[in-house]
Amino acid sequence: MRPRVGHIEFINCLPLYYGLVKKQVLWDVELTKDTARELSHKLMEEKLDICPIPSIEYARHWRELVLLPGLSVSCDGPVTSIFLVSKVPIHELNGRKIALTNTSRTSQVLLKIILHDKYHIESEYVESPPNLGSMLLDADAALLIGNEALAIHYKAPEGLYAYDLGVEWKALTQQKMVFAVWVARKKFAQEKLQLVRDVQHSFVDSMQYSITHVDQVAEDAARWEVFDANFLKAYFTTLRFGFDQEYQQGLMEYYRRAQALGHIAEIPELNFLEV
Amino acid sequence: MRPRVGHIEFINCLPLYYGLVKKQVLWDVELTKDTARELSHKLMEEKLDICPIPSIEYARHWRELVLLPGLSVSCDGPVTSIFLVSKVPIHELNGRKIALTNTSRTSQVLLKIILHDKYHIESEYVESPPNLGSMLLDADAALLIGNEALAIHYKAPEGLYAYDLGVEWKALTQQKMVFAVWVARKKFAQEKLQLVRDVQHSFVDSMQYSITHVDQVAEDAARWEVFDANFLKAYFTTLRFGFDQEYQQGLMEYYRRAQALGHIAEIPELNFLEV
Repeated sequence: MRPRVGHIEFINCLPLYYGLVKKQVLWDVELTKDTARELSHKLMEEKLDICPIPSIEYARHWRELVLLPGLSVSCDGPVTSIFLVSKVPIHELNGRKIALTNTSRTSQVLLKIILHDKYHIESEYVESPPNLGSMLLDADAALLIGNEALAIHYKAPEGLYAYDLGVEWKALTQQKMVFAVWVARKKFAQEKLQLVRDVQHSFVDSMQYSITHVDQVAEDAARWEVFDANFLKAYFTTLRFGFDQEYQQGLMEYYRRAQALGHIAEIPELNFLEV
Repeated sequence: MRPRVGHIEFINCLPLYYGLVKKQVLWDVELTKDTARELSHKLMEEKLDICPIPSIEYARHWRELVLLPGLSVSCDGPVTSIFLVSKVPIHELNGRKIALTNTSRTSQVLLKIILHDKYHIESEYVESPPNLGSMLLDADAALLIGNEALAIHYKAPEGLYAYDLGVEWKALTQQKMVFAVWVARKKFAQEKLQLVRDVQHSFVDSMQYSITHVDQVAEDAARWEVFDANFLKAYFTTLRFGFDQEYQQGLMEYYRRAQALGHIAEIPELNFLEV
């Protein structure tokens, strides 16, 4: 049986998918595309073997998982696809209501860390589908990610303040921020070590391909996405896809702060697959 | 939006998938893999735009569909993946119970046509999951397709009679038999004609690639399938994937006989996409 592999249907993972197609990896894996949250459910239900998951989910399930080295979705300063949009300057949000997109867990916690640790603010949070208009109907600020956030980067809404959470995180911690990591179920990795190594290798190879062919990725993606090729190229080159020491430090910093605020029960160890 | 395209998770469609990977088509379609039956449901619910469907399903929904030219899953004589396995010679099955795999509609009707038109037999039919042992517990014969049928071709079960339905059909009609066709929803094809033409072209091109590289397809497939490369190569070269005049005649012959026995309400027209 081919390894059952998850892929996040999200614009920040497009470069990886492009590489998987170009490097013809899709013959050797059984790919399931879904939202990050659905994929992590399927992984924990043992319906998938290898999968990208939101950073915060790794902290919750790390004892059953191993990390694939060399691969993440991260940023080093600007991310341009995670924005807090506010009617008032960010430091005035104390006691006000903030609507959080229900499409991201990791970014929700990231926002709460930034507001607490950097601005010393306590706000009221409500979850909402990602629609800026309706979010701002009964909240003073809105957290958006993905295409909705990129649209704000593309054209800043008039009369609103917009804060890139990658920039805010870097200003607070001087660190990179890791949004998603790739993992295998530990049991699967023990039983099929070479297979997981092969997948890890193919994925890193595919990502490398996309990074070195980013013009082409952006052009081919623009055919099917709402944004134009130049904009997509700028976005894909803003994102970081590595997972070396510096990324790991940034991720651990995120976990320490998340745990201090009670969002995760414990700080996980970063257990990597041996390759 | 990429066109939403279905792919049958079935060994007879592996060559097409291989071609789609090698020709890097998967970037330009949103692929959903499922059983033939599930795919045709999704197509009729407008959750898919382009899809392979069982021949019998085309007859039921043809007014809402257009056929993609140049592509089918067919045979010309032996098919080796659709078998009637029987405790007694086939002409002795009159009045006996036959268990039909619940994984195929087209083959169920094909068997009934063969038994009625060629052997003049009326049997009692029950549907069953595809397990030869349990099927033959309370039936005298069993219809199997796919891997279960190939296993019989690989090693004939002792003391049982096995009949290849492709051979039986050819003996009855002197025609090819078409098991699956590729279709687009008519409305989608009207709105996105060039896109559907592009997909049709890519699919025919991908299938052509696999046919000319069948050794490689069989070898790569053997890594993940239960059968060895030689066996798979023999199977893939037994199957036919074209859809010219002769295939169309064979399909119409099937429809005429299916309608005469009351399995479809009317004989469909073969409406092709203009390419």
